[in-house]
Amino acid sequence: MQRCAFKTLALDYKVIFFDAYGVLKNYRGMTPGIHATFEYLTEHNIDFFVLTNDASRSPTQLADVYQRAGITRITEDKVVSSGMLARDYLRYKVRTGVIAYLGTPASAHYIETMGLQAISVRDLDLDQADTVNALVLLDDEGFDWNNDINKAVNLLRLRNIPVIVANTDASYPVSRGQIAVSIGAVADLIERVIRRTFIRFGKPEAQMFNFAFEHVQKYRQVAKTDILMVGDTLATDIMGGNHFGIDTALVLTGNTLPHMADILIESTGIVPDFICDSAVI
Amino acid sequence: MQRCAFKTLALDYKVIFFDAYGVLKNYRGMTPGIHATFEYLTEHNIDFFVLTNDASRSPTQLADVYQRAGITRITEDKVVSSGMLARDYLRYKVRTGVIAYLGTPASAHYIETMGLQAISVRDLDLDQADTVNALVLLDDEGFDWNNDINKAVNLLRLRNIPVIVANTDASYPVSRGQIAVSIGAVADLIERVIRRTFIRFGKPEAQMFNFAFEHVQKYRQVAKTDILMVGDTLATDIMGGNHFGIDTALVLTGNTLPHMADILIESTGIVPDFICDSAVI
Amino acid sequence: MQRCAFKTLALDYKVIFFDAYGVLKNYRGMTPGIHATFEYLTEHNIDFFVLTNDASRSPTQLADVYQRAGITRITEDKVVSSGMLARDYLRYKVRTGVIAYLGTPASAHYIETMGLQAISVRDLDLDQADTVNALVLLDDEGFDWNNDINKAVNLLRLRNIPVIVANTDASYPVSRGQIAVSIGAVADLIERVIRRTFIRFGKPEAQMFNFAFEHVQKYRQVAKTDILMVGDTLATDIMGGNHFGIDTALVLTGNTLPHMADILIESTGIVPDFICDSAVI
Amino acid sequence: MQRCAFKTLALDYKVIFFDAYGVLKNYRGMTPGIHATFEYLTEHNIDFFVLTNDASRSPTQLADVYQRAGITRITEDKVVSSGMLARDYLRYKVRTGVIAYLGTPASAHYIETMGLQAISVRDLDLDQADTVNALVLLDDEGFDWNNDINKAVNLLRLRNIPVIVANTDASYPVSRGQIAVSIGAVADLIERVIRRTFIRFGKPEAQMFNFAFEHVQKYRQVAKTDILMVGDTLATDIMGGNHFGIDTALVLTGNTLPHMADILIESTGIVPDFICDSAVI
Repeated sequence: MQRCAFKTLALDYKVIFFDAYGVLKNYRGMTPGIHATFEYLTEHNIDFFVLTNDASRSPTQLADVYQRAGITRITEDKVVSSGMLARDYLRYKVRTGVIAYLGTPASAHYIETMGLQAISVRDLDLDQADTVNALVLLDDEGFDWNNDINKAVNLLRLRNIPVIVANTDASYPVSRGQIAVSIGAVADLIERVIRRTFIRFGKPEAQMFNFAFEHVQKYRQVAKTDILMVGDTLATDIMGGNHFGIDTALVLTGNTLPHMADILIESTGIVPDFICDSAVI
Repeated sequence: MQRCAFKTLALDYKVIFFDAYGVLKNYRGMTPGIHATFEYLTEHNIDFFVLTNDASRSPTQLADVYQRAGITRITEDKVVSSGMLARDYLRYKVRTGVIAYLGTPASAHYIETMGLQAISVRDLDLDQADTVNALVLLDDEGFDWNNDINKAVNLLRLRNIPVIVANTDASYPVSRGQIAVSIGAVADLIERVIRRTFIRFGKPEAQMFNFAFEHVQKYRQVAKTDILMVGDTLATDIMGGNHFGIDTALVLTGNTLPHMADILIESTGIVPDFICDSAVI
Repeated sequence: MQRCAFKTLALDYKVIFFDAYGVLKNYRGMTPGIHATFEYLTEHNIDFFVLTNDASRSPTQLADVYQRAGITRITEDKVVSSGMLARDYLRYKVRTGVIAYLGTPASAHYIETMGLQAISVRDLDLDQADTVNALVLLDDEGFDWNNDINKAVNLLRLRNIPVIVANTDASYPVSRGQIAVSIGAVADLIERVIRRTFIRFGKPEAQMFNFAFEHVQKYRQVAKTDILMVGDTLATDIMGGNHFGIDTALVLTGNTLPHMADILIESTGIVPDFICDSAVI
Repeated sequence: MQRCAFKTLALDYKVIFFDAYGVLKNYRGMTPGIHATFEYLTEHNIDFFVLTNDASRSPTQLADVYQRAGITRITEDKVVSSGMLARDYLRYKVRTGVIAYLGTPASAHYIETMGLQAISVRDLDLDQADTVNALVLLDDEGFDWNNDINKAVNLLRLRNIPVIVANTDASYPVSRGQIAVSIGAVADLIERVIRRTFIRFGKPEAQMFNFAFEHVQKYRQVAKTDILMVGDTLATDIMGGNHFGIDTALVLTGNTLPHMADILIESTGIVPDFICDSAVI
């Protein structure tokens, strides 16, 4: 484990994977100065991709947020979301029928682009449960928790269908000091009640990193040793990057507060290869 | 493990503890014929108590349900609810200040009878978090899950206060084949997001059985060997009774379906002393 | 939460429960100066009891350690061990047959004083599994882990019998900086392999505190508000004392290092009523 | 979910992944008649690979077992073991220093072929802990559980190094009705005592399937839809195959007994695409 400046560190890699929240942006908007990072990387011919456990929006919509903030280097093809893995699962393992989902209509994009019929659990009538071939948990918004979590539970009692969770996070920040429960924690609740094991996509799972790794190859042939994962969260970004076999750098602009970094690394046993103050150059 | 008729078995005990749901009643109302059971027990001078993980109503209100169904033997003093343990906790460990709760106004009874000020998380303003000295999870109804679960999470980020869960169950039946998520599972969700360990009251915890045991002594001096726990759920009623050191009888009128009893006993390793078809005589 | 001197704090109670390891003694022997504490308490007519998750020895043997160290006030009747709860379980729920155990011959005391036949898993022949009516996990010593853990697993595949774990701790200190895996963690391993839920006795479970509470009443009628639990471990001593409804004091001479106390209290949400440097007066 | 004969089903795929234990072999040796399966697949130009959570032997030694049983089609290059993933991890993330391991000398093969110095925990002196850069859990044999599990725990208290678990299984069969605890369950025990999260390789993790998928491409360009995973265990083979996005077939010759298949599929929610009596043709 080595402390160093991101500006210097970045030059040792051909590709950099960035976590979004806590690295590139936070609840107030973009991390101040992060724009320069992408100019610098482009200048030095270093590729970059955003790996996010956010399945609430399509890659286009996710990229739009950066575009509108003036970070034009982050285009749709630079975004790898856990929703894309859920979409892949449906492609290979479900193929037909109606797919029920918990989330906003925007999040249903991942189902609809597969040519599958998506229905929000909010609109689902359990009398028609027979037609449902999968349940996908996409976003914590867009449904009535009181009614629709119970409806999802009872759907799963009627139908032994795959449940796909497109976000493994338990919470996300919404303002200084406040967080919101994310769909990953709702998944835990339903899983406990129904006593089944759901299929989860997102960091720290290797499949997320592998998906990004294969995605990179479309642009440039690289090896694992050419890639650096930059994240603010030990349990997802760093654990996942280490497990997948790429180098990892922890930044202190998000979940891991500067004065807690050493204690958390010691107590979790999740050790990044590098620690940088931030991803700003 | 021995199969036998409840009518015969009951005569070997001075006191019988009954689970409510799945034994005395179900989603449609009282178990048909259960009225006779309490006449029979009274006739044979056998005491009985209802042990329930239901903290949504006061003991008086819980007894009323039986009274209105014509089972007049079940009076308020025959009911032991997990809410009574939560109340005891507040008595000994909180004593002052405002107590926030998730649940209906009826469930807040357990807080208010302690002379403490109860405020529903629904009505709580986080700016006043400083005055809150505990959070009690009482019932899955009475609040807006979308807003108030998040508000509870953020309350706990602001205040390191005890969280008391007055119902350890994950779900309860609401109709033939349908269940509802109970406050115990909501507690799991919040616990995971906030990464703390809450204080839980209810079966199978020994404290629930001990509370009932002490309650019984007010009526009659009995030993553990004088008591039989009758329940429909292996993981709560039977596990808890065994752990506490009293005899246990599984009935097949609720959670444990007759054709699954042997498989479930084998796979969980939770073995009742007796199996009876039902608690009806 | 309030910082204060144990000498002053103690005077507010009629009875004090002490954890053993990390409070009264450590890997080197008795906590220096702890002798005076018991003289002081006796002088002020304050009762005291040692609550320990150590089932490796009988209460007599546990008391002997203090006696030999010159702390003569700690006699056999002042010791409440988790092994005594396991013994009670056997008394009420097993009654006959052979009881297999993992532990030393000294730990088998808890079985033998019940008039039951104890056999170490080390000496057990699985061909005689039919006669075994319970398995008790008492101590991490006294058996060959390579052979006997596997033998215990296979015994439980042959016999659906209760498994009693008389120590809920995962580890214990053996020297400066070194720990040893305790039987509680071995229980977790077997539980995972066999996928059953064992019956556990020891702090933080309420049954341990209740057992001690009833034990106290033999000497003196006291209420919960008359008792203080003093311990060095948040997850067992403090969590358990809080849950049971008695006051709790964390001391900083064992598991919880002085510079970590605030961080651990914040991150676990387990809040003692008091923090004292030590139990030495 | 569809019941069908493996002989017919196999023809729909270009590549078949087989689990070893419970499919190709059991505690007595090879599954009777399994030899013909590999002749049939070869004849029909269907590739096959063995995916095993067994890191106790090198791929060469694992293949030898089949060779000696006359199944000459299973050569070293047909075997994908979880040990190969552990080796890859060391290649990318450790690179230098001494690697401690729990396992037999044969299992240390995976470390030594990386040019790293392997030392059994059995032979490790904790005074030399400073030189150790990783701990790898390879096999449940080859070390003294009483001493060496404690030594591993204390090594991890001295050194915050990565711990790699090369077998995710909890147990394996050793004879009719008897099982042995495997290194995966030993990993759970150490993880609980030390409170860290280890890096695990093996089914059902996607990384195992992805590794095999990439391995296959050396022989033949195939898509996920060209591959069938055949296994006897829902939680590893079927869960993992489903998650990775390939078709799955459950066989009833191992862990999942014929009369339990439907109940287990229902209760776990892990649904194979196909059920076949066996992989024998």
